[in-house]
Amino acid sequence: MNYQEILNTIQSELYHIKSNGKVASYIPELAKIKPDKFGMHLYCINSGHYNFGDDTERFSIQSISKVFALTIAMSLLDDTLFDRVGVEPSGDPFNSLVQLEHENGIPRNPFINAGALVISDILISELKNPKKDFLHFIHTITNDNTITINPQVYASEKSNSYRNAAVLNFMKSFGNIKNDIDTVLDFYIYQCAIEMSCEELSTAFMIYANGGKKLFDNQTIIAPEKIKRINAIMQTCGFYDEAGEFSFRVGLPGKSGVGGGIVAIHPEQYAVTVWSPPLNPKGNSELGMYALERLTTLTGYSIF
Amino acid sequence: MNYQEILNTIQSELYHIKSNGKVASYIPELAKIKPDKFGMHLYCINSGHYNFGDDTERFSIQSISKVFALTIAMSLLDDTLFDRVGVEPSGDPFNSLVQLEHENGIPRNPFINAGALVISDILISELKNPKKDFLHFIHTITNDNTITINPQVYASEKSNSYRNAAVLNFMKSFGNIKNDIDTVLDFYIYQCAIEMSCEELSTAFMIYANGGKKLFDNQTIIAPEKIKRINAIMQTCGFYDEAGEFSFRVGLPGKSGVGGGIVAIHPEQYAVTVWSPPLNPKGNSELGMYALERLTTLTGYSIF
Amino acid sequence: MNYQEILNTIQSELYHIKSNGKVASYIPELAKIKPDKFGMHLYCINSGHYNFGDDTERFSIQSISKVFALTIAMSLLDDTLFDRVGVEPSGDPFNSLVQLEHENGIPRNPFINAGALVISDILISELKNPKKDFLHFIHTITNDNTITINPQVYASEKSNSYRNAAVLNFMKSFGNIKNDIDTVLDFYIYQCAIEMSCEELSTAFMIYANGGKKLFDNQTIIAPEKIKRINAIMQTCGFYDEAGEFSFRVGLPGKSGVGGGIVAIHPEQYAVTVWSPPLNPKGNSELGMYALERLTTLTGYSIF
Amino acid sequence: MNYQEILNTIQSELYHIKSNGKVASYIPELAKIKPDKFGMHLYCINSGHYNFGDDTERFSIQSISKVFALTIAMSLLDDTLFDRVGVEPSGDPFNSLVQLEHENGIPRNPFINAGALVISDILISELKNPKKDFLHFIHTITNDNTITINPQVYASEKSNSYRNAAVLNFMKSFGNIKNDIDTVLDFYIYQCAIEMSCEELSTAFMIYANGGKKLFDNQTIIAPEKIKRINAIMQTCGFYDEAGEFSFRVGLPGKSGVGGGIVAIHPEQYAVTVWSPPLNPKGNSELGMYALERLTTLTGYSIF
Repeated sequence: MNYQEILNTIQSELYHIKSNGKVASYIPELAKIKPDKFGMHLYCINSGHYNFGDDTERFSIQSISKVFALTIAMSLLDDTLFDRVGVEPSGDPFNSLVQLEHENGIPRNPFINAGALVISDILISELKNPKKDFLHFIHTITNDNTITINPQVYASEKSNSYRNAAVLNFMKSFGNIKNDIDTVLDFYIYQCAIEMSCEELSTAFMIYANGGKKLFDNQTIIAPEKIKRINAIMQTCGFYDEAGEFSFRVGLPGKSGVGGGIVAIHPEQYAVTVWSPPLNPKGNSELGMYALERLTTLTGYSIF
Repeated sequence: MNYQEILNTIQSELYHIKSNGKVASYIPELAKIKPDKFGMHLYCINSGHYNFGDDTERFSIQSISKVFALTIAMSLLDDTLFDRVGVEPSGDPFNSLVQLEHENGIPRNPFINAGALVISDILISELKNPKKDFLHFIHTITNDNTITINPQVYASEKSNSYRNAAVLNFMKSFGNIKNDIDTVLDFYIYQCAIEMSCEELSTAFMIYANGGKKLFDNQTIIAPEKIKRINAIMQTCGFYDEAGEFSFRVGLPGKSGVGGGIVAIHPEQYAVTVWSPPLNPKGNSELGMYALERLTTLTGYSIF
Repeated sequence: MNYQEILNTIQSELYHIKSNGKVASYIPELAKIKPDKFGMHLYCINSGHYNFGDDTERFSIQSISKVFALTIAMSLLDDTLFDRVGVEPSGDPFNSLVQLEHENGIPRNPFINAGALVISDILISELKNPKKDFLHFIHTITNDNTITINPQVYASEKSNSYRNAAVLNFMKSFGNIKNDIDTVLDFYIYQCAIEMSCEELSTAFMIYANGGKKLFDNQTIIAPEKIKRINAIMQTCGFYDEAGEFSFRVGLPGKSGVGGGIVAIHPEQYAVTVWSPPLNPKGNSELGMYALERLTTLTGYSIF
Repeated sequence: MNYQEILNTIQSELYHIKSNGKVASYIPELAKIKPDKFGMHLYCINSGHYNFGDDTERFSIQSISKVFALTIAMSLLDDTLFDRVGVEPSGDPFNSLVQLEHENGIPRNPFINAGALVISDILISELKNPKKDFLHFIHTITNDNTITINPQVYASEKSNSYRNAAVLNFMKSFGNIKNDIDTVLDFYIYQCAIEMSCEELSTAFMIYANGGKKLFDNQTIIAPEKIKRINAIMQTCGFYDEAGEFSFRVGLPGKSGVGGGIVAIHPEQYAVTVWSPPLNPKGNSELGMYALERLTTLTGYSIF
């Protein structure tokens, strides 16, 4: 497969497409990002790196961090973890409280905000130094110690987190949050404020394409049967209320963030990251969705 | 892969498991089925048939028929089909009217009842002899002309279809049903009343594992890119409000029916059907879910 | 109280007000009504009739008929009637199926469509000649045998009743409809198609202001304690999702219809009807609400 | 009307009735109240005080305080107040977040928790010393300076207020809370922790029966047209999701609290308070509802 040729084709197609999407504005700091940024980086198990555009520029990973958080939690705990958070798609916008009310404070899955907040609560209970340990996990899987948070984004989200505070208080009223609410919220916002480039995300997500092992040193991070489950959750829940559309059009497990990034993996083949800040009305990168759809169309391969 | 050995292992494990599930009772005729029936049939592209138990006994395919209906509709129409029915998981029980009200009569996906009723409406508009043509499609992909409906089940559902009539009238009030309501309902119930065995279903679903081609004569039924999309919808929407759980535990695209059948496929590998009538609270065969989870665990392979 | 002077004041104020409302269009026949019709008729127990405008012109009473239907049902049955329909405001648009789903097919109150359909079902079970008996009831309380339905409106609604058919099928799936669906729907539409003038409605509603007795011959139609209960339901449920607003602004029990009519009563004082076809977004006559608010403001009296 | 005789009859009937209700337990301090407490106090404009039982023992007024808060807010502000909180019944349990989500953070009415929290927020903006001024208002309308909060109840609620904190954060995310969340929550809990006896509540509520004037000194607290509106809101929204039932059975405007108190008024006639701690499943005093229903049945008078 000539991946670089395919990426070049996608890049040239993108010149002719104008996004109708809008850069996320609910966090003032994110709204400052230039909307015409675009990067794509594919890391193939067998044949290495392919890329174009702004693929080495770091951006706010936002909800993509939820995959790392779940991975750490699943590596520490057994399936009782899923007594506190489900694995079903939500069928509702990502920050909905409705379903939470009908289902007694148990979030539908770990990739909606409510579920990720429960995972944050779990990590605070399980980790000695949650923030440091979280960054350390990313440093380990990327082999890069320079990755860290953007302090402006972190501060910006801290002062705009009423919806997440509502969700946390609501779940605590059902007994599904064990730690102090401010501590959980702070840790959650910290994760979201981490910045990584397309290249770094593709490297990090190689553990999901490679059965739980880092590619660069073959070290196991998490058991392969757990990786399969994380990939399954990405497939059904990775794109807010558009997981079906992504599955239908792209056909790969993946995760998006409101920073405009999307990472997807083809098990045993590759990890690929795209970054384009303007979001569609469902909150996913509009051109990122397009680029990944073109990738599986032009290669002729998806998981289906 | 020694599939027969793996199936034997699953069969012996099943002796020790008691299902807490309940045979579907909302259709009186279905409630008469013996709960201890169990059949499993795996049809491998490369190595043929593996099976045990009641795998040649026919049972009511019920909602599994929705996959055939969607396949016929997609083979006749282009993507404008999806203006009338979505591809997102519903996050609600299979017969919910709530979501339909919030989303103006456009069902979430073709595998909830509302969506399948829209597909029935489309097929009535597109096919000359809808019932005959539908059966003919199944005869073609199974190479078996004896498959037909169970007239008692058909009659039983006809007299217990108020919920589906409500859904149809509701969608017609939004303009999303074009034909006469009784005609659509009759055709929908007809499809559900078809009876097939595990062996026949695995043969029929080979087109989904084999890129749209029948295995026995290599004839193309539907384009491979459309098959990928149908598989994606099965993955995210095939199990009512338990699609995430199935994806998480089994990791294959599939479709269940309240008759107790589940069919799943591993693209380019196999199609597999299990039949065990007792259903879990979400409406899926309890032991069927178990058997398929064991299959992907024992083989070590899923799509993820 | 000089009611005629107050009505004159209201009439002169109305010259200066332009309604932003829209004439009901979901029934084609209703859409033909001239939007500038306006009539008002107040019938005082002690001092007789006051009026202006088109108060003797008949219009489609639509949902105002629900009050008569409930009155007949309550005169025939005891409180077990309320096992099949509640007395709580719905907090949802008048034709919502959502609440019905959450509450197992028991409508919130007899003045939303679902509840009125249950009352229709009850009357079909209880009355010998439902349509004839219903008209007879209205003839009795108005002392006018010429009141009847508008056959065009009746036919128009018959061919546009998918939403009500959905509601009926849905409730029948819960066991809360006993008779044939088409029969119930036909009877319901028949009631809505009755035409009465402001004067006739004020005369009819005198039984609610006068403790269950007709004023013109002092004959008891229904026990006073039952009248109090009907008035209470009008107060909390008489205006779809705007009952609170009406209570807040007007402070009288009443009932509106999409034909543009509103009837309200002041117990032991008067019955008053206004008619102005343009409806506000909640489905109530916009100028009718205004006129009644002015009435209780200018008289200085409401029930509160 | 011989009110004392009627109250005696009710008291003797209550000996034979066993409540199936349960004392509120979500606030540990409230759960300590003896369930067999019962007091009733009717204060008639023309003829003074009637009573039996524990009518001079103070109890936690809880949500009854919402009426005082609304009264203060309406006396300070014009109708723009109702841009931030509606006047419609909610049709949902008293602490639901669902409706709030669908209606962009504008609570349905001032007597559900969300609405009362908005009123608290408004009072904090408008009053110099909110807590002191609130108590002062009650002292003024009761002519009793000894009324104050129960510090144990206050502390108990402070440590169990996650649901209300969720609601506040949620509304703040929509911009409908202006002040600091902890400050609003603290003031809200303070109001709820006030203790008054049946006698004191009947005296306080005399302003609602008496057109806005205190009876003991004829001083106007709030304009009569505003009193009418408050009474209307009590009628349609005063009993959580049971306002229709109360209106249907009792026929008076009123307000209940989870402390087991209910106050109702008959405009221009009387204010009446009952106290019995066991609550029915909707959160209203079970025997209190019964006693008030008997009152309007035995007197033969309600507002309808």
